[in-house]
Amino acid sequence: MGGQAAYVAVVGAGTDDPELEALAEEVGRRLAAAGATVVCGGLGGVMAAASRGARAAGGTTLGILPGSDRRDANPWVDVAVPTGMGELRNALIVRTVDAVIAIGGGYGTLSEIAFALKTGVAVIGLRTWSLPETRPDPLTRARDPEEAVGRALGAARRR
Amino acid sequence: MGGQAAYVAVVGAGTDDPELEALAEEVGRRLAAAGATVVCGGLGGVMAAASRGARAAGGTTLGILPGSDRRDANPWVDVAVPTGMGELRNALIVRTVDAVIAIGGGYGTLSEIAFALKTGVAVIGLRTWSLPETRPDPLTRARDPEEAVGRALGAARRR
Amino acid sequence: MGGQAAYVAVVGAGTDDPELEALAEEVGRRLAAAGATVVCGGLGGVMAAASRGARAAGGTTLGILPGSDRRDANPWVDVAVPTGMGELRNALIVRTVDAVIAIGGGYGTLSEIAFALKTGVAVIGLRTWSLPETRPDPLTRARDPEEAVGRALGAARRR
Amino acid sequence: MGGQAAYVAVVGAGTDDPELEALAEEVGRRLAAAGATVVCGGLGGVMAAASRGARAAGGTTLGILPGSDRRDANPWVDVAVPTGMGELRNALIVRTVDAVIAIGGGYGTLSEIAFALKTGVAVIGLRTWSLPETRPDPLTRARDPEEAVGRALGAARRR
Repeated sequence: MGGQAAYVAVVGAGTDDPELEALAEEVGRRLAAAGATVVCGGLGGVMAAASRGARAAGGTTLGILPGSDRRDANPWVDVAVPTGMGELRNALIVRTVDAVIAIGGGYGTLSEIAFALKTGVAVIGLRTWSLPETRPDPLTRARDPEEAVGRALGAARRR
Repeated sequence: MGGQAAYVAVVGAGTDDPELEALAEEVGRRLAAAGATVVCGGLGGVMAAASRGARAAGGTTLGILPGSDRRDANPWVDVAVPTGMGELRNALIVRTVDAVIAIGGGYGTLSEIAFALKTGVAVIGLRTWSLPETRPDPLTRARDPEEAVGRALGAARRR
Repeated sequence: MGGQAAYVAVVGAGTDDPELEALAEEVGRRLAAAGATVVCGGLGGVMAAASRGARAAGGTTLGILPGSDRRDANPWVDVAVPTGMGELRNALIVRTVDAVIAIGGGYGTLSEIAFALKTGVAVIGLRTWSLPETRPDPLTRARDPEEAVGRALGAARRR
Repeated sequence: MGGQAAYVAVVGAGTDDPELEALAEEVGRRLAAAGATVVCGGLGGVMAAASRGARAAGGTTLGILPGSDRRDANPWVDVAVPTGMGELRNALIVRTVDAVIAIGGGYGTLSEIAFALKTGVAVIGLRTWSLPETRPDPLTRARDPEEAVGRALGAARRR
């Protein structure tokens, strides 16, 4: 199980942004409907929205937290891992998954994108960082949650 | 969820020992029946037996792996976190839980017992390491899986 | 000592690029001449060049390695810490220092830049990633090693 | 350098114990006199005493700290790595060295002994934990600092 299902991370800022959260919630819902385990940083904003969407669709959600208290997880996290490692946990999120969907986001999200690209994990971008100096674009850009989830699951299958 | 349910680690050797595995399987089953999330190192031996028992009782199992490949998890792990951190992951297991049940075990298990005692996480021992120089015994000794699970859940409630 | 001297990371690609290595070597030399401890990822390319420069100037060099064998460090590393944590060590490098000088670099370097920006550590860039969507530029751009070192030490003093 | 010199950890409690600190200081001095890099957890008690002894003999000291502030290091640490990983750093200390000298100590020290035994790093014990169930004794017992250092350096040479 742990080995067989697809694991997809949804990463993005922990601050409120209703538009990005709506995207994240639909991404979470579609991933769960397809049987994928949804992995995130376990906190608020995009992380909470993706977890909420996945739970609404009956999926499994894993939150990998920066702090050492499991109770900091948002209420839609099924399984919480309080790493107590701060931002180092960003790299653990990437290591755990087959693909990353990045939605908006700040420097933490940029670190996750960088780790994924460094380690060969596909990154699907929804209104997230651009890296204009790198040609061709190392991210797969998606127009909407449906395309993002389709491309993430496709990348997961090819691993 | 992630925050509310009790999380209990079952730690012990990864090598075959049918007697210890029978204990671990019953421990896993009883923990899951009581609604606890069963956490382990995700590999074989005691870890696999505890996961198998928990899954048989419909519970949730989390495996925190030393390697970086999620597929190394035993087949009864629901959610696998491949840390790629080697033995450092032992401390992550302890950090994630409310109580530790140690069954048999070698030096890896001893490190988990030590981490738990250091950080104030209750350790329930079933035929595991004794620390005769430390008086009173810092571990809670249990005679059988039923007592071990009862004491672990009691400790989890008191946190 | 450990607490008082300035610690500055020099980050960049591990692959050969004579021009970038010449910059890194001068950066290392100037940092050491100013009494700073030079921190890097401990391997080749920009990391080795910065270490070599620092040692030539009688400085102290710290290499924080991704693997678990201390002997993978380049020969100009005085003190090597083999983390065995892979790319997670990038965040440890940033955590250890007062400022980061990024010279060229690929996705690993981008992760270090992102971690530094996330955690409020100044990043001085020498021919490195641009983040054109973020205004004002979150990096301090330097034209040459002298300016890069000056700005890094200035940022270290203000911490 | 980083690769060639012997690295030896001195581990033990962070609390005051003048007798154990006297042992640790002599151990640090003898290690440094023999050219070894002295590694410790960077804080007080046995850690500070070992660092002080090593520095008095002109040696190099490395402190691997649990917190994320380099300035928590004791004043005799030359190079400090603030891991921000809490007790997980105990395993990093062990990973960094060729041998461990354990002096007294509590559960943190026990975790370091366990990690070392698990990963095949020699442990020399000076008035530290006994593991009476394990026969033969997995630790090398030393009567005094001179013997402890001699045995640690012997183990380092054999790696």
